Amino acid sequence: MPQGQPTEVPDDGLTTRQRRNRPLTIVHTGPGKGKSTAAFGMALRAWNQGWPVGVFQFVKSAKWKVGEERALKVLGASGEGGAVTWHKMGEGWSWVQRDPASSEEAAREGWEQVKRDLAAETYRLYVLDEFAYPMHWGWVPVDEVVRVLRDRSGTQHVVVTGRNAPAELLDFADLVTEMTKVKHPMDAGQKGQRGIEW
Amino acid sequence: MPQGQPTEVPDDGLTTRQRRNRPLTIVHTGPGKGKSTAAFGMALRAWNQGWPVGVFQFVKSAKWKVGEERALKVLGASGEGGAVTWHKMGEGWSWVQRDPASSEEAAREGWEQVKRDLAAETYRLYVLDEFAYPMHWGWVPVDEVVRVLRDRSGTQHVVVTGRNAPAELLDFADLVTEMTKVKHPMDAGQKGQRGIEW
Repeated sequence: MPQGQPTEVPDDGLTTRQRRNRPLTIVHTGPGKGKSTAAFGMALRAWNQGWPVGVFQFVKSAKWKVGEERALKVLGASGEGGAVTWHKMGEGWSWVQRDPASSEEAAREGWEQVKRDLAAETYRLYVLDEFAYPMHWGWVPVDEVVRVLRDRSGTQHVVVTGRNAPAELLDFADLVTEMTKVKHPMDAGQKGQRGIEW
Repeated sequence: MPQGQPTEVPDDGLTTRQRRNRPLTIVHTGPGKGKSTAAFGMALRAWNQGWPVGVFQFVKSAKWKVGEERALKVLGASGEGGAVTWHKMGEGWSWVQRDPASSEEAAREGWEQVKRDLAAETYRLYVLDEFAYPMHWGWVPVDEVVRVLRDRSGTQHVVVTGRNAPAELLDFADLVTEMTKVKHPMDAGQKGQRGIEW
């Protein structure tokens, strides 16, 4: 794909360099495949730049995405790019000692850690995988998420995935892609298969 | 995301196991971001399964996707998953000695190699990146592509990316996702940035 050119130069008082290095909020939403997969693909670029990458999986089951997890951990440990830290709600967040009372509490604990890491500038790319759901369900207040992201320091890019991303987040985000299902093998009685779906 | 269940069982004479292991043709198309990125994310799963992965980049410029290329090469060389072979049209296909007379000729040479590899069952996952374009432009006949994919042996999965994928390919494909641009920072005067766009 050719490198795009901006259609207009904004009157925001920033230099091109400042604008180029602006921290981005990116959302992958919609009913189609590829929302998380594309986010993990972005993590490959960040790794290649030597950036520390933090993944937070806001899902109960950790069956899916084992391939991406293993690949990014091997890359992170290779010493040839950035470090990769992988947090999973499904197996219990590593910083939480006791079992959460509910998925809602677990999701909130995840968000609290994201806030702490943003404040400490721990990572340069955050993959908040399936984080659209706890916002959609009202477990994590979207207005607080937008405020924290707006006020974050440094150049910390944040990618949020999941269906039904709230409108308030989409309004705030710099880049939103909707993945639309055009055709899926499950429609023809095909079950998910190893190496493709996980 | 929960594991989906088929909505109906097809009357195709196949067992569930046969159907599960059916080779898939997958297309990522549409004007939005993430088509290639999601395809490279799929390659992480294939690598994790120990599958040989072949990437064919049908683009002139090789500036984009350097992060994905380096990451997948490091993974392929790690010995912890499948091997990864990366072919680039932009730098000249490795199997072609002389410079092609045109992009059209180069694209055709790429497709000829894909055909040879499919016949030899060289890979288990093929990423034909930006391959929608040479079909869209009529450089590579889509009816031939569909025929070759339909008649391929073994369990060789093929992912095709690019805008404007021809209808004939979409009709044949098992899984089609359209990436729709909802909002892009270039609309607000933002240029592409390192680690995000490449």
